[in-house]
Amino acid sequence: MTKALKKLRSMKDPADKIRAMADALVRFAEKGENPYLDIPSRTLSNVTFSDRDSIIKLGDETQRRFFFNIGQAKKFMQTYLVASGCSELLKVRKTTSIRDLYYMTKHTIKDAREETFNDQKESDPIIEDLEVALGSLREELNLFASNRGAMVGNMTIWDSGDMINLRKQGSGGWSVPSIVEENVVRFKSCEAKFILLVEKDAVWRRLNEDKFWKKHNCMLVHGQGMAPRGVRRLLYRMVNELKLPLFVFVDNDPWGFYIYSVIKQGSINLAFESSRMAVPSARFLGLSSYDKGKFKLPDNVSISLNKEDRDRAKQILEYPWFQKEEWQKEIKKMLKEGIKLELEALSAKGISFVSEEYLPYKIKNKLWLN
Amino acid sequence: MTKALKKLRSMKDPADKIRAMADALVRFAEKGENPYLDIPSRTLSNVTFSDRDSIIKLGDETQRRFFFNIGQAKKFMQTYLVASGCSELLKVRKTTSIRDLYYMTKHTIKDAREETFNDQKESDPIIEDLEVALGSLREELNLFASNRGAMVGNMTIWDSGDMINLRKQGSGGWSVPSIVEENVVRFKSCEAKFILLVEKDAVWRRLNEDKFWKKHNCMLVHGQGMAPRGVRRLLYRMVNELKLPLFVFVDNDPWGFYIYSVIKQGSINLAFESSRMAVPSARFLGLSSYDKGKFKLPDNVSISLNKEDRDRAKQILEYPWFQKEEWQKEIKKMLKEGIKLELEALSAKGISFVSEEYLPYKIKNKLWLN
Repeated sequence: MTKALKKLRSMKDPADKIRAMADALVRFAEKGENPYLDIPSRTLSNVTFSDRDSIIKLGDETQRRFFFNIGQAKKFMQTYLVASGCSELLKVRKTTSIRDLYYMTKHTIKDAREETFNDQKESDPIIEDLEVALGSLREELNLFASNRGAMVGNMTIWDSGDMINLRKQGSGGWSVPSIVEENVVRFKSCEAKFILLVEKDAVWRRLNEDKFWKKHNCMLVHGQGMAPRGVRRLLYRMVNELKLPLFVFVDNDPWGFYIYSVIKQGSINLAFESSRMAVPSARFLGLSSYDKGKFKLPDNVSISLNKEDRDRAKQILEYPWFQKEEWQKEIKKMLKEGIKLELEALSAKGISFVSEEYLPYKIKNKLWLN
Repeated sequence: MTKALKKLRSMKDPADKIRAMADALVRFAEKGENPYLDIPSRTLSNVTFSDRDSIIKLGDETQRRFFFNIGQAKKFMQTYLVASGCSELLKVRKTTSIRDLYYMTKHTIKDAREETFNDQKESDPIIEDLEVALGSLREELNLFASNRGAMVGNMTIWDSGDMINLRKQGSGGWSVPSIVEENVVRFKSCEAKFILLVEKDAVWRRLNEDKFWKKHNCMLVHGQGMAPRGVRRLLYRMVNELKLPLFVFVDNDPWGFYIYSVIKQGSINLAFESSRMAVPSARFLGLSSYDKGKFKLPDNVSISLNKEDRDRAKQILEYPWFQKEEWQKEIKKMLKEGIKLELEALSAKGISFVSEEYLPYKIKNKLWLN
C-alpha cells in the first residue's frame, strides 16, 4: 500500500478524506503531471484470513487508476464524480440510496454524447472502490441500501433524535436502518445480557410473540436471511461497545453456516469491511446437524441435500475458518446424513417448542459452536 | 354460491367458522354420506370488476371437493388439516408463518407411506382455499407472511399491547406487521390529514429524513415495491376508520400503475380479498408520464420501455378500471414517449427536490388522477 493511500485511510473524517483526494488532483494539475488514484485491489488474490484476528482481511495490493489513459479515464472521472456526490451529501447532512446517487451523478458530459454512467451496475463498484480507497464504509459516506432486519429487547436506543424503547415495539419491532453509525444510532440504557440473531423473520416473530427476549433478558435481531450491512454493523457495535455476547441461530444447511461465518469473519467479496463489521466472538447456537437426533425431530421435516448443497458444504469444509475439529465434524455429519433442516422444522414439535424448549435448553447447556 | 357456504361465510368469528366446518363433516359421517366441502372458484372466469363498488370481485361459482373421490381425497384431507392447524393457533392465541404451518401440519399418514404435504407449494393454495371458503383473511386465521413496509407520521398506535408513537420512530420507522387486525393494531390519537404511500423505501427514507410527514401533517408509508397484504389491510383500515384520503406515489412505469391499481381495486389473483383490502378512493399522485416535461427533468434519467413494458402497458390499457379518459391519456402518453421513470430520477434535480418541490406542488395544485 502506498504512503499517500495509508495517510488518506488514516484520516478520521470522511469529508476530510474526500477533500484530500480532491487536493491531490489539484496538485497533479498544477505540476502538469498525469493525475492518478491508488485503490486497494478487491480481488480474491488480495484476500487473506488472519489467524490472529480471526477475520477475513484485504491485503496490501493496490491498483493505480490514471486520468490520461484511454482504458482508465472514464473510471477515474466516475470515481471523482461519486466522491463529489458523497461530499455534497456530507455537506448538507443528508443520506441517500446508492440508486439515488446513480441518478444524482448521471448526466451527459458537456460537448460530448457520453453519459457519465449508463447503468447503476457501473456506479455500484465505484462506490466500493471509494470505500476501500478512503477506508470509509459507504454508510459513513451517507449512502444507504434498503432497510432490512428488525430488533426488539431490553434496551433503549437513540435513532436520529428520537428515543426508542425497544421493549415496547409491538409485533413488528424496530426496523434496523441501513446506516447505524454513531450520528444516527446511539445505545442508551441496556439491561440485556446477550444478543440472539435469528436468520428468519418468521422465527423471530414467534420468539417476539412469546416474549423470549423478556424471559431471557436479551436482544432479539433478525436479518431476513443473510444479514445486511446495517444489521452486521449494528451487531458489531453492540458486541464491542456494550460487551454483549452474540449467538447466531440459522437454518441447518450450508447457506446457514455461511451466514454465520460472514457474521463472524466477514465475507470474501467485502473483505475491506471485516475489521468494522466482523464479530469473531460470535457463537453458532443452531440448528446443528446433531439436533435432529438430539431433539427427536420427526423424519419428515428434513429435506434432502441437493447437488448444490453438497458442493457448497464441501467448499465450506475447506475454508480456513471452518478448520476447527468441531466444525469439521458438524459439516461432515450434514454430508453423511444427506439432509438439511430449516428453523421452522422445530414447529413439528409444537408452535412454541423453539422458544420454550429448544433455545433455553441449548443456552443452559452451552450447546454452541465457536 | 350454496346456502351452506353463504351461512359459513356470514359467521363472524373465524374459530366458529372452522368449528362449523368440522361439525358439517361429523354430520356427513353420521348420515353415512360422502362428505364434501364447497369452495368458491378462484379462476379468472369467476372474477369481475364491479362498477358500482369500483373493486375487483370474486363471482358466485363454486367447486365441490369430495372426500370419497380419488382425485379429491388428498386435497379434502389437506383442507381440514390446515383448518385444524388454524383452529389450534386461534385457540392458543398464537400466530405463525405460512411456512411454519406447513411444518406444523406435515407428517406421514399412519399406516401409509404418504406424507400429508410434500411441499409448501401444496399447502399455500390450500390456505387460499380456506380463506375464500370461510370468507376470512389468513391474517384472521393467525397466519402471517414476512413483515414488509414501514410507517411514520402524526399518529400513535397500539401494537400488541405497546403504545407506539409514530412521530418518534427515528430513521427506520415502525415496521408494519403482516397481521394488522384489530387484536394486533389499534389506532389511537391521529392528527394526520392524509396518507402518502410511496413505492420505494429509499424515497420514503428521503421523505422521512426531510420530515415531510411533519411539514405536511400526514402518514408516510412504504410497501417495498408491491404493497404486501399487511400494508394493504392497514391502508384500508386507516382510510375507512380514520377517514383519511390516500395518495399513491409510484414509479412511472406499467408496474407502478399496476401497484396503484391493486391498492385501489384489488388484484385478479386475490379477488376474494378486495372487499376488505381495496381502497377505491385512492388517488395517483405520480410519477405521471407528463411529469418529465412539467418538471423539466433531464433526458438522461429516463429509461427506454422494453418489449415487456410495452406489452404490459397495452394490457393495462384494456383493463376495465383504467377506462377513464385521463388514464387512457396517461398510459398512451407513456407508450408514445417510449420511456419510463423511476422515483429516484427526481434526484437529478437535487437531493430534496422530491420533498421540497415536487410533492408539495402536486398536492397544492391537486395534480392527481383518480
